[in-house]
Amino acid sequence: MCELFAMSSRMPTTVGFSLERLARRGGAEGPHRDGWGVGYYSGPDILLLREPTAASESELVQHIEQHGPPSELVISHIRLATRGKRALQNTQPFMRELGGRSHLFAHNGELDGLMGLQGERGNFRPIGDTDSEAAFCALLNELAPLWQEVDVDPPPVERRFDVVADFAARLRTLGIANFLYADGDTLFVHSDHRIPPGSEHKHPGLYTLERCCTARLPDLSDSGVSLAMDRQILTLVASVPLTEEIWQPMPRGEVLAIAGGAVFLNRSTLGPDETPVSRLAG
Amino acid sequence: MCELFAMSSRMPTTVGFSLERLARRGGAEGPHRDGWGVGYYSGPDILLLREPTAASESELVQHIEQHGPPSELVISHIRLATRGKRALQNTQPFMRELGGRSHLFAHNGELDGLMGLQGERGNFRPIGDTDSEAAFCALLNELAPLWQEVDVDPPPVERRFDVVADFAARLRTLGIANFLYADGDTLFVHSDHRIPPGSEHKHPGLYTLERCCTARLPDLSDSGVSLAMDRQILTLVASVPLTEEIWQPMPRGEVLAIAGGAVFLNRSTLGPDETPVSRLAG
Repeated sequence: MCELFAMSSRMPTTVGFSLERLARRGGAEGPHRDGWGVGYYSGPDILLLREPTAASESELVQHIEQHGPPSELVISHIRLATRGKRALQNTQPFMRELGGRSHLFAHNGELDGLMGLQGERGNFRPIGDTDSEAAFCALLNELAPLWQEVDVDPPPVERRFDVVADFAARLRTLGIANFLYADGDTLFVHSDHRIPPGSEHKHPGLYTLERCCTARLPDLSDSGVSLAMDRQILTLVASVPLTEEIWQPMPRGEVLAIAGGAVFLNRSTLGPDETPVSRLAG
Repeated sequence: MCELFAMSSRMPTTVGFSLERLARRGGAEGPHRDGWGVGYYSGPDILLLREPTAASESELVQHIEQHGPPSELVISHIRLATRGKRALQNTQPFMRELGGRSHLFAHNGELDGLMGLQGERGNFRPIGDTDSEAAFCALLNELAPLWQEVDVDPPPVERRFDVVADFAARLRTLGIANFLYADGDTLFVHSDHRIPPGSEHKHPGLYTLERCCTARLPDLSDSGVSLAMDRQILTLVASVPLTEEIWQPMPRGEVLAIAGGAVFLNRSTLGPDETPVSRLAG
């Protein structure tokens, strides 16, 4: 079971990770031995730190727990391998350049038959062997015409949102498709469902927590994530609630667009023949 | 004055960097305050660590001095900004995916009029503002048809070498064009010339040192680079000799292809109307 985490904020925020605690919060027993990764946006580019090893054994994780750079957009992934060997090229998040910006993608779930996606016929190709990276490449191949043909930078967010939402709906027919995708301007989130370790029931795929400057910022110290408590607007996205506060479970099929710490677009892509997640976690 | 360094080896080697010492070796006074970066290949992918800050002040540099991962191909760059503001997106080496492999590029020199290069009309676009990244994108745009149309992976190295050598010859007409380029299979090196701080004379742009398992491996401990001394074949490339051994100055216009620690292709691209570097350093 992989763990996803994202943070969008109005002003750069220092996000310290205890990735091992983050994984345990998700119900894992023992170390998530297959890899971890954190991408920190800095303007249009990303510092992407990844290792195909257990976070609990990593010197680099110890470093970033204390010295992660301030950022307005952070995506993290902790891996328990289901597809693809343990190797750097199979370690999320994945990064590509499109339209002069660094794009970042992390996925939780298993997918089959990605070859059927339209985006297979494009320039972006997987470096590793995971279904997750193949999905990212397919998404970028579908987005590429928009970034290359529209004469504004970035292209209108409504059009990017349409492509992402349409892609998410089709991806969901191939398996479990929880994902975080950022294009250097906006964070897009799609929630499917999730079956936690030891459970037979479907839980929400992702949860969100939004806080603005007038509210008290969440104390995440027990959860494995710490935030610099500056005057701030921020939205957190995670596979499971990280605090005792009331996190919003995302309905199956929902797609969000988030920038500057706030959700500004949302859409349900659930088809009439798809079942929503009826049993919520906790 | 930027500093370039590359290491290709037969077996994975741990390369520890003292980037500050490496910069001083190149004649810099005071810290190279504008950024540093190191890319470590792991199979077809790269762990790329970069910061737009002085290496001497970096916690991450302290970390990698002791915990850099073993790799068969490493490229490093230390930046003193000449073009482009101090920002992550202007910090080398630069990375892109092409043909399902991570490609890495680092450049030393100043270039003008890159728009005239053929590769301007392609999918790869700069994220930052440097002439160096624009050159990398132009090179990848010229290489892309080969990676996308040839039905072998990787495409024949002779054909890749031809594209790189032809590109290097044209790049040299635009300014100073020392560069390191790796495509996940081969390291390509092009040497132009270099005018060190405090000098009025042109020095060789790059030097190489090749060692095989029967020779004593170089002791680089004073230079800011340390190597794990395993049974090994390796080639080092640097802006200045890093030891008291006899490093080979690369003639102006020479292009090398290096893999598994050894040079296996070389070509002079110097035109009849170009002047070789006559005065060698030291």
